[in-house]
Order: sequence, then structure tokens, then C-alpha cells
Amino acid sequence: MPPDAARIVALVISDRASRGEYQDLGGPAIAQWLAQNLTSAYELEIRIIADGRDHVAAELQRLCDEDNAALVLTTGGTGPAPRDETPEAMRDIVEKELPGFGELMRRRSLEEVPTAILSRQTAGTRGKTLIVNLPGKPAAIRTCLDAVFTAIPYCLDLIGAARLETGGNLGETFRPR
Amino acid sequence: MPPDAARIVALVISDRASRGEYQDLGGPAIAQWLAQNLTSAYELEIRIIADGRDHVAAELQRLCDEDNAALVLTTGGTGPAPRDETPEAMRDIVEKELPGFGELMRRRSLEEVPTAILSRQTAGTRGKTLIVNLPGKPAAIRTCLDAVFTAIPYCLDLIGAARLETGGNLGETFRPR
Amino acid sequence: MPPDAARIVALVISDRASRGEYQDLGGPAIAQWLAQNLTSAYELEIRIIADGRDHVAAELQRLCDEDNAALVLTTGGTGPAPRDETPEAMRDIVEKELPGFGELMRRRSLEEVPTAILSRQTAGTRGKTLIVNLPGKPAAIRTCLDAVFTAIPYCLDLIGAARLETGGNLGETFRPR
Repeated sequence: MPPDAARIVALVISDRASRGEYQDLGGPAIAQWLAQNLTSAYELEIRIIADGRDHVAAELQRLCDEDNAALVLTTGGTGPAPRDETPEAMRDIVEKELPGFGELMRRRSLEEVPTAILSRQTAGTRGKTLIVNLPGKPAAIRTCLDAVFTAIPYCLDLIGAARLETGGNLGETFRPR
Repeated sequence: MPPDAARIVALVISDRASRGEYQDLGGPAIAQWLAQNLTSAYELEIRIIADGRDHVAAELQRLCDEDNAALVLTTGGTGPAPRDETPEAMRDIVEKELPGFGELMRRRSLEEVPTAILSRQTAGTRGKTLIVNLPGKPAAIRTCLDAVFTAIPYCLDLIGAARLETGGNLGETFRPR
Repeated sequence: MPPDAARIVALVISDRASRGEYQDLGGPAIAQWLAQNLTSAYELEIRIIADGRDHVAAELQRLCDEDNAALVLTTGGTGPAPRDETPEAMRDIVEKELPGFGELMRRRSLEEVPTAILSRQTAGTRGKTLIVNLPGKPAAIRTCLDAVFTAIPYCLDLIGAARLETGGNLGETFRPR
């Protein structure tokens, strides 16, 4: 990849997908959305791991501290079911939570499905990495990325991460001032 | 009640109502709303207790762990006044908070009264029980139940609680897929 | 000031402004907005301090416990940048968080700028003081005050603080019942 390419990780959090019992569709949906809307250089890695609070928290911490990802997009584990612990794992390791992401993603998703309020998805930063939780279903992933991605390049600027440029349906990158 | 009837508790949290100085209107408003919108078997108990964080937390925990309630609807104690400690009591005992409930209830209530943002109401799960905080006034209770109840039957499915079916003004039960 | 004048503090939180490297515009924007919309007696003090979680928390606590401010309006330090720690400082000292303030300020600000979701601003009470976080830019300050101030006089009533009356573009004070 070019030396200044932004490192992005799609972290698929699913017991069944991690055991190969289920074909993950979340990672590919994220890949397709990024391909259609990012115009600057980036490298995307899709990783699939099992649910579990400590396990997910450790992987998120590693992606921030050792892997130098600029952006981690998780998919799965945000609902109220017993194995859904992605938000708890997030809070265990982020330094700053950004509640506006979850609020807006739920609000836009609610226009499509009345159970959107069950999602506990949030976002936060640790060092120079922004982590955003996405739902598991491809249609919901696209709705959420459409809702919040416009704010992501400037957020990465503020935390000193890689510079991103957008285009496509999302439009040109917005940076205040 | 039928063996598969859902157990629902309306927990009225009010110093004055618990001392009999005030005729509680919140419990009856919840009872009427449920009667008009639930079409499956349920058993409703209205309990009235005093405010107080430890006291309310202990009662909520008992309703989850020993009383096997599928759904607890609290009313009262969500504002900024000194004795309003229902959200703190909730957080002391829930395993997962569901912030989308509070966000949506405040948003819909705000269309009716500009002080709706003072409500700190939230929702959360503990084991196989969902707890939702409602305001104290009957009109506000109805606004909030209208706003979020559509997501409740599927939430109960996800946590392994009783199955609910809705009708009336709320419409048929929504379950994704 | 009249004996019953409400004490209001605009707390400007900015490393650069506190060192005199930057002319603060947030404090004057708050002063102008209050002058245009409050009709009851109040005393406003504008204080400028550096960023820093412990430092800001200590100053907020002092304003609540010793200075008897009815209302503290902070400006600055709510974003995701490393020195933005106002919400963390808030949570260290408030007794009750009021999430509806942050939700509504972000929602209204989002109508003006897509990066509004990056603001982590919130509100909360400690004893008889309400603290509300505002952004740093004058236009954003006005948007946020327009959004939430209608709920502030009644909130001050509920916590036993000074009585405020509003007018101007905001309209007459709203108090339920």
C-alpha cells in the first residue's frame, strides 16, 4: 500500500461466523461501502472473531496500540442478547466515548425498522484510533455508514490519525472552517 | 393466569404515593395502555414503593431474580430533583443498558413539552427481564409507551423472556425477518 | 446585584485563551445571548481556565460548592482531541447527568454542521447548581442555547436554585402545570 494509506479494520464479531458456521456478510458490506465512498488511499483488513467481552476488548486494544489502525469498524454484538457484549468491550478500552454516533445511527435506522432502539452501538477513541460499532446486517451497515461517515475524516484529523478523503454518494470531505 | 402469561410489573416509585398522601395515576395509566394494546396473555401487578436509590435497586433486582418478571415498567423518579434516583438505581442492577429507549422517549416527549429533556429515563436488561423507566404523568406515560413498545416484544424474545403479541393502535407485533 | 439575582458563570475552558494567545469569543457570545433572552435579575461572571481533567473538575466543584452558582455554562473542550476533557471533568463531579441536553444540542447542531456528532457535550447537576457544556464557537453556542434553554428555569426550580425568567426570541418562561 502507499506509505500514507489509511489502515482500516473491519472487525466482525460473531461466534457463528468465527467458527465458519455462517458466511459473514457484514465485512463484505463494509468493504463495498468504503470502495464506493473513499477516494484517498486506504488498506482494509477484515478480521472475524468470536463474541465475548474480554476477548473483544483485547482485540480492540491490540488494533489501537500495536496495529496502528486509524479506523476500526466493528460489526455485530450490539443488541440485548446474552452474547452481545461489543459496547461493554468498547467501554473497557476506549479513552473517550462519542455518544453522538450511536444516537444518530439509531435515529436513522429507526426510520427503517422500529427495533433499531435495541442497538446499543456507540463509538469512541483510543489514542490515534477511532472505533465505531456497526450492526450486523448489510442493509443496516449501509444506513449507519451513510449517517455518520461524513464526520469521520475530521475526527481522524483531530486525533492525529490518517487523512481520509470521500466522494461518491457521500460527497466531498467535510472539514469545518 | 394461563401458564404462559407474561408477568409484567408496574413499579410506581413515589414517596408520597407510597405513604398514601397522593393517589397514584401512573400505575392505572400503564394498566389501561397495556389493556388496549396487548393481545397475548399477561398478568400485571402494580406495586408502589418509596423513592431512594438502594431501596429501588433492591426491589428491581428482586423483580428480576426472584419474581421472574418479563417486563418491569417503572414510573416516577427520573427527573433532576434530589429524590429522583430511579436511573441510578437502574444502573446499579442492570447488566446491559439500552440507551435507544431513553433517547426516543425524550425525543417524542419533546414534541409535547419543552422540559422533556430533563427526564433521565433509560432502559436495561438483567437476565430475562427488561426494565423501562417511564415518567410519572399519565399523558407522558402514554407518549412514551406509544414511542417504544413496538420494540419490546422482540427484545423479550432476544433475552429469552415471555412472548408478547400486540394489536390495537400499536398494530401487529413487529419481529425482524 | 439585587439580593435574589441568579448567579451564572460562563466557564471558558481553553489552553490558548487562558494563556492570552487567543481572544476568547465564547464568553462574550454567552453574555450576549443571556442579555437578549433573560428578563429576571442575574449576575454573570466570565472565567477563563486551561484544559485538563482534574483542573476543570476542581473548578466546577468549587463553583457548585463554594461559589453557589445557579448555572454554569462551560464552553470548549467537548470534542475528541487529546486535550478535550470537559465531559470527563463533568462526570467526575456531577451527581446526576442529564443526557437529554447533549442529545438535543447535538441534534440541533447537526442541522447546521455534519461534524456535530463529534461533540461529547452533556449536562448535569451537583447540589443546587446546573452545569451545561456548550461548544466553543459563537454560532454553535447560540444554536445550543436556543435548543435547550427553555428547559433550564424549571430545572433550576427542581434543584432549589434561583428563579429565572425568560423573554426575547426564546419566549416566556415555560413551567409545567
